[in-house]
Amino acid sequence: MRQVTILGAGLVGSLLAIILRKRGYEVTLYERRPDMRSASISAGKSINLATSHRGWKALELAGLKQEMEALAIPMYGRFLHQADGNTAFQPYSKNNEAIYSVSRGELNKKLMTLAEQHGVKIFFEHKCTHVDIPANRLHFELPGKVEKTVQADLLFGADGAFSALRDSYTHLSRVNCDQNYLEYGYKELCILPGKNNEWLMEKNALHIWPRGNYMLIALPNTDGTFTCTLFMPFEGEVSFAKLKTEEDVTAFFDKQFADAKALMPGLLDDFFTNPTSALVTMHINKWHYQDKSALIGDAAHAIVPFYGQGMNAGFEDCTVLSGLMEKASPRPSPKEREVLSKEIADDLDWGWILKEYERLRKPDGDAVADLALNNFIEMRDKVADPKFLERKKIEKELGKRYPDQFVSVYEMVSFSHTPYSTAIQCVQAQDKLLKRIMDAGDFFMNMEKGSFGNTLGTWITEYHNEVQQLDFGNEA
Amino acid sequence: MRQVTILGAGLVGSLLAIILRKRGYEVTLYERRPDMRSASISAGKSINLATSHRGWKALELAGLKQEMEALAIPMYGRFLHQADGNTAFQPYSKNNEAIYSVSRGELNKKLMTLAEQHGVKIFFEHKCTHVDIPANRLHFELPGKVEKTVQADLLFGADGAFSALRDSYTHLSRVNCDQNYLEYGYKELCILPGKNNEWLMEKNALHIWPRGNYMLIALPNTDGTFTCTLFMPFEGEVSFAKLKTEEDVTAFFDKQFADAKALMPGLLDDFFTNPTSALVTMHINKWHYQDKSALIGDAAHAIVPFYGQGMNAGFEDCTVLSGLMEKASPRPSPKEREVLSKEIADDLDWGWILKEYERLRKPDGDAVADLALNNFIEMRDKVADPKFLERKKIEKELGKRYPDQFVSVYEMVSFSHTPYSTAIQCVQAQDKLLKRIMDAGDFFMNMEKGSFGNTLGTWITEYHNEVQQLDFGNEA
Repeated sequence: MRQVTILGAGLVGSLLAIILRKRGYEVTLYERRPDMRSASISAGKSINLATSHRGWKALELAGLKQEMEALAIPMYGRFLHQADGNTAFQPYSKNNEAIYSVSRGELNKKLMTLAEQHGVKIFFEHKCTHVDIPANRLHFELPGKVEKTVQADLLFGADGAFSALRDSYTHLSRVNCDQNYLEYGYKELCILPGKNNEWLMEKNALHIWPRGNYMLIALPNTDGTFTCTLFMPFEGEVSFAKLKTEEDVTAFFDKQFADAKALMPGLLDDFFTNPTSALVTMHINKWHYQDKSALIGDAAHAIVPFYGQGMNAGFEDCTVLSGLMEKASPRPSPKEREVLSKEIADDLDWGWILKEYERLRKPDGDAVADLALNNFIEMRDKVADPKFLERKKIEKELGKRYPDQFVSVYEMVSFSHTPYSTAIQCVQAQDKLLKRIMDAGDFFMNMEKGSFGNTLGTWITEYHNEVQQLDFGNEA
Repeated sequence: MRQVTILGAGLVGSLLAIILRKRGYEVTLYERRPDMRSASISAGKSINLATSHRGWKALELAGLKQEMEALAIPMYGRFLHQADGNTAFQPYSKNNEAIYSVSRGELNKKLMTLAEQHGVKIFFEHKCTHVDIPANRLHFELPGKVEKTVQADLLFGADGAFSALRDSYTHLSRVNCDQNYLEYGYKELCILPGKNNEWLMEKNALHIWPRGNYMLIALPNTDGTFTCTLFMPFEGEVSFAKLKTEEDVTAFFDKQFADAKALMPGLLDDFFTNPTSALVTMHINKWHYQDKSALIGDAAHAIVPFYGQGMNAGFEDCTVLSGLMEKASPRPSPKEREVLSKEIADDLDWGWILKEYERLRKPDGDAVADLALNNFIEMRDKVADPKFLERKKIEKELGKRYPDQFVSVYEMVSFSHTPYSTAIQCVQAQDKLLKRIMDAGDFFMNMEKGSFGNTLGTWITEYHNEVQQLDFGNEA
């Protein structure tokens, strides 16, 4: 069997290592950073994870679901903190489904330890500078500027948005790619627990302080704290650039997030110690090279965090890859064996697996990037748009009246395994339906007067028929 | 004064070196390839240059116009070779203006020699692997894998589409960029001269064999040869992938380009020796870093060759930079002098120059990329579209009837110094006007019947007024 090398011992790299190890592969992981389990390197750049169905499925596949549940707190909806001090709770689903708050650091540590227990070897402080793609040779820089090269056999780049493997792919001929930063940044902050380590806000919710073009969110941790994230423009009237002094920060939080601030005794320290990080979307149209290497997770599809799907999408990559390993022809024909090396002949047809993986998964990578970006644009531009607010009301009403036909895309993304690319097509079908309805005038008045006649029913049926034609994967 | 380092001794790098040297700067050039004047390295990747107004202006600025004219052959129009054997000549301009065919290699050699004569030092076989942007430190790889670092003071990246400086900029935080390859490739071929080195086709024209989604072009050289370029999809029904054997190529050229083939005794050799090259468009939203470095030419705005503006745009970058040096405040105030090093204090305010250069020039870089891509799309998709052909006819007629109002964008781009970004806005205004006209039915019949009344005149006036509002730079 072939030797597997994985770049990046983050969430996706560690999980992939376990999945491959369980299938009998020897796996070596190379990680840029020191071992986060011994070194205390709180970079203060974390956004808590919201694990949903896709994430859980991959964890279950790796046999880790139970262990991970111990680290996770269910969040059944959004808990809104309005500017006027009012609060409101909005459930995520009609069926009491939840997304799960998990500390990125804790989950990552656990996955690393489990990988090692399964026999995966992890090298830390190995910064990959570039990969010779045709030769599959990795170049590393170790502490003290020591250089090292490693010959890979079957290589996965799970090394995140700034992947060295991705970067090396972009230098191959005819590879299209782009990177696009938002004009928004984010900063990690922290809400502390009470005296007995109890949660000082509702524990089972994702807290949001929406303020138009900026917002604060908070996700619960098992130790009673909440990991908070402030999203805000880098520059402009209300921006990170404007919050220069302790007085600026104090005044801003007093005015905008008074209830949160009361629970943040370390606010000023956090604010001026933690970095302001950037948010990027990246595309690349090459996800694999022959039977030699492939990108996975953020390395293949770095997205912005506004749908809570970054880790879920990366974990689903692992599920897809695992499914293809099931399907792959187990052994080449005797004729093929003659020209193949023993390692390759004795293994699955990885040329086919990696090619299929790219073909199947690239459209979903593009789709989840668009979904995440759309959510950002809604948040930034549309929350103050009366047309948009009216549309949201109509959508809610349609969901109530036609629960079987008008399915929430949020629920499809978070609580099903429907391909992301299908979810995007549902969004488009809903856009068309909603345009019809809104072009016909005041929806609620029309409903009341009964002046829709059967028209609305016909439209819903047409919409539903269109959606039924889509590819819902194995769940259809 | 500051020391100037330029990456790339191509056309733009060499010209920029001369312009800066003439202003008294010490300039050092680093070039990846061996010296093309001694080594015989015909890469067979050249597309002949079509120098137009913008190119000449920069050459004149550097005092090189006369020397360059000796290398250039005027082309007054397109000479079309139709599939049915018919030919036609289409002049580029009403005023007998020409674009000039120049051999890229010859021009480059000449510019290098002139640069050296002016005291510019050129290092060859210095491949820049990356640049430490904040430190302005260049890392080179020399033959034999020898490594070398160079400290730059004021750095320009004129190192083409795959610029090492550009690549290093893309790794800075919040830099947006993209690269997009066409599905088309190109291959250099050659038409030989007659027995007395005479041109065997019309000398003063750009020859085109348009064939729908592929084409051959030929530009004259001073030695009686024509440099030909075949543009064709990489894959598909008619494609490079389909021309595998000598028989394939012979049959294809016999059928499609019989008259050209008769003048290409070396066709098969050329076809199988010369590479099939790719065509890329690149954008990046960071063109300079503080007062330390900047991108210029293809490194800032790599474009496809279908408008013949690649070199012209790069040379115009030099003109713009030179203009800004004229405008820049010559010396800092006494107060500024106290905090600046002598080298910086004794020089122009390069922080301002580079910032202004990016601000002024980036929109034009984007515009020329769009113009070039539009021409490709027209060629690929629209030549067989009756609507498009009708539109072209109407445009021609409008140019005749309203010569002062309805100016050809091609002429604006090729025979004026109007900013590219203004040319693109003219395209948009023309699109609007043509839509109006075509929506009103059969243009020529309406003209004949006089049923436009004064409408057409009014529309033209409105169009003209709109265009008059645009920024035509110094030429307005």
